[in-house]
Amino acid sequence: MTKHVSPPRVAPEALEKVCAELAAKFGARFTQSAAVRQQHGHNLSWTPNEPPDAVVFAQSTEEVAGIVKLCAAHGVPIIPYGAGTSLEGHVNAPCGGVSLDVSQMKAILAVHAEDLDCVVQAGVTRKQLNEYLRDMGLFFPIDPGADASIGGMASTRASGTNAVRYGTMKDNVLALTVVTPDGEIVKTGSRARKSSAGYDLTRMFVGAEGTLGVITEITLRLSGIPEAMSAGICSFPTIRAACDAVIATIQSSLPVARIELMDTISIKGINAYSKLGLPEQPLLLFEFHGTEAGVDEQAKRFGDIATEFGGGNFEYATKPEDRTRLWQARHDAYWSFSTHRTGVSVLSTDVCVPISRLAECVEETERDIQASGLIAPIVGHVGDGNFHCGVMVDTNDAKEVADVEAFLKRLVKRAQSMEGTCTGEHGIGQAKMKYLEGEHSTAGLDLMRRIKRALDPNNIMNPGKVLYM
Amino acid sequence: MTKHVSPPRVAPEALEKVCAELAAKFGARFTQSAAVRQQHGHNLSWTPNEPPDAVVFAQSTEEVAGIVKLCAAHGVPIIPYGAGTSLEGHVNAPCGGVSLDVSQMKAILAVHAEDLDCVVQAGVTRKQLNEYLRDMGLFFPIDPGADASIGGMASTRASGTNAVRYGTMKDNVLALTVVTPDGEIVKTGSRARKSSAGYDLTRMFVGAEGTLGVITEITLRLSGIPEAMSAGICSFPTIRAACDAVIATIQSSLPVARIELMDTISIKGINAYSKLGLPEQPLLLFEFHGTEAGVDEQAKRFGDIATEFGGGNFEYATKPEDRTRLWQARHDAYWSFSTHRTGVSVLSTDVCVPISRLAECVEETERDIQASGLIAPIVGHVGDGNFHCGVMVDTNDAKEVADVEAFLKRLVKRAQSMEGTCTGEHGIGQAKMKYLEGEHSTAGLDLMRRIKRALDPNNIMNPGKVLYM
Repeated sequence: MTKHVSPPRVAPEALEKVCAELAAKFGARFTQSAAVRQQHGHNLSWTPNEPPDAVVFAQSTEEVAGIVKLCAAHGVPIIPYGAGTSLEGHVNAPCGGVSLDVSQMKAILAVHAEDLDCVVQAGVTRKQLNEYLRDMGLFFPIDPGADASIGGMASTRASGTNAVRYGTMKDNVLALTVVTPDGEIVKTGSRARKSSAGYDLTRMFVGAEGTLGVITEITLRLSGIPEAMSAGICSFPTIRAACDAVIATIQSSLPVARIELMDTISIKGINAYSKLGLPEQPLLLFEFHGTEAGVDEQAKRFGDIATEFGGGNFEYATKPEDRTRLWQARHDAYWSFSTHRTGVSVLSTDVCVPISRLAECVEETERDIQASGLIAPIVGHVGDGNFHCGVMVDTNDAKEVADVEAFLKRLVKRAQSMEGTCTGEHGIGQAKMKYLEGEHSTAGLDLMRRIKRALDPNNIMNPGKVLYM
Repeated sequence: MTKHVSPPRVAPEALEKVCAELAAKFGARFTQSAAVRQQHGHNLSWTPNEPPDAVVFAQSTEEVAGIVKLCAAHGVPIIPYGAGTSLEGHVNAPCGGVSLDVSQMKAILAVHAEDLDCVVQAGVTRKQLNEYLRDMGLFFPIDPGADASIGGMASTRASGTNAVRYGTMKDNVLALTVVTPDGEIVKTGSRARKSSAGYDLTRMFVGAEGTLGVITEITLRLSGIPEAMSAGICSFPTIRAACDAVIATIQSSLPVARIELMDTISIKGINAYSKLGLPEQPLLLFEFHGTEAGVDEQAKRFGDIATEFGGGNFEYATKPEDRTRLWQARHDAYWSFSTHRTGVSVLSTDVCVPISRLAECVEETERDIQASGLIAPIVGHVGDGNFHCGVMVDTNDAKEVADVEAFLKRLVKRAQSMEGTCTGEHGIGQAKMKYLEGEHSTAGLDLMRRIKRALDPNNIMNPGKVLYM
């Protein structure tokens, strides 16, 4: 095993040949401009910018296949790029190579309203899709916050606030069209709701972060827009009380659509940023979907449970504009981080634990943050046991960077020791490769490496991500 | 590609060595008796009995690993065996070798009620598990009909009547312990509800039918037993009307827990077998789970929809014994097949199509059955677009066997041409290998073969199943 060794940089002659051919074929859709390269090596994490050598904008699966075949013939790395919203260094180009940008693949190819599914190109964003679907009474429920591309969401196995009810990308992708590292076009499944026909190629590419191929089209499950929605917020004296209320809610089979936690630090930031005047205590935000009578009943039951665990300061809303107001605290969470400290980077990381361990994990993490002298508000998709820390870090301060690194290591270890995972929804990218090693046994990592080698023996697909090869 | 060539039979000397060692180590838990071998090469399909050379009963993951290591060292095939309820020849031993029976691995290792999950050994059956869980207010919702082992259900990506609401094994397995073809023990994931940490090893083994390794332990998602359940039946003038009612139900986001279709032939059989006196018309059986008010509302809404599509002769029930009575028609379906024709085999096969094509697919199949002079009642998990034909066949009549083969080929082709799949829940086994070839492109099959070769280069894990190698 060649651990922690970066794959070699692309050979200059090979790169030159590929770039010349791409330039000739794609004209203005191919570029080596520093600004565009820089932007494609950018990401929302604190990993250093590692720009690709070139960027090519594909508009069809066939074009993607042609680009991959060309790069494969010359051993040139390919970094699939969608909306660039990833958080763990997924789109950096540590070995150089070509960023294969699918953001112009924005066609919604089919909506099958009767079957509650659709087929989209990889560059379609979730907001674009939901805009398109709204008049049909349908929606695509996965909401990671950012207006990510569907291809990128599939590649990172994304989820978000609605996952407790509607599942993650793993559950909502019916089939994919993928370009393999050889440049072959493969459809991984049919439009049937379920299938027992052979290996689950779909789930092999969902979450593979572009290291096994390029996702170009996605068949998605859709949901009907609920007839009624009811949203609410309530405050709790402690994180533990809030978590216990959530556990009781989930256990009682209340089909909550979203249930989010914000810790006291987050609320302080939100109050400073959005002037919401919320009690400076842990807050739960929740939403119910169903019939009018159904959501009324759910909200009432949840209220009873929350009260039992010390919940108070309830506010409810059913009209869209009022629901949006209630959820504003959550939507502004990321932006409010800057109120704590300006001129620094915010490192957004996530872990996920069994819900019974959530209170313990969040409480220990809060104590750790305090003891470390860091500022790191916590928000969480608490129905899934998934939470985020937004760690403020001055990346020019080596000592602080080291402190944050040490904190992240403890955070991941804590989650893993509680039978959890180093990432619930952000993925591995570059930044969590070392933690993936700790999560799986040598034999488990060996299986992953065998799959990678079997599909991409020359390691040209997004090298330097997910697995040390 | 070496299509349609059976892998070679195990070498006698290798087998002899392995059997001697297993006999010494496992004593009475190892056997080469003809009766036990015969029973382990048996299955509920019409594929000929192909008994293994020996059967060994393992009681722990470590024992399984030891057996696999021994067999791997001598190139002896291993056929994982659970409850033997599979329908497509999954447990036959076309190359001989050792049937690795996990039916004595019946320990429920942990139930985490707060997290709605549990960890079980592969030989635990679903009825055993639900019996165990009942007092905790929890249940495991996947119900394929037979009292299958959880390991077998994971291996075939099983589902059944509840899948429309609760998903399939793909959705309800959180993690697995697997013994790889090298005899290594791998845990594929944590107990976190979701994870974006690396390749989805769990979903790689779910549905692989024991061809990539032996599943020995399963971490399962559980559900809370609903506070209230309401069941019902209603008759429709045509299959199309029944299917249209189902489509409208699914589209209106009614969270139906089960919705099953039986065609007129099935109803005639049921009336003969169970004396239920049902109208001899297509029948829908349905069930709603939720709060008392919730299931009332759902049943009422469904009634309105069904009436609109010509549904009539409604019967509803909420008490357990009354619900059981209503569902009797469905439960007896398999046994009632014998009323149509005695002394013949019943071949139970399944396909799955997008729900919008279901009426068309079932109607065409009914016409095909009539034209072919076959008897083949149709029952279906209609909310998923999945249906079964129970084809009566005299396996001693070569002409009839050929007719049935031709019918099956048309059935699969019909489903595939409607963007469906050759099997929704039974799996490929031996009997559908040729149809898997038609469902995926050469490049797609090549990906599956590469995975198989990467994990099991000597093809010792359940050879002669799923993929022609």
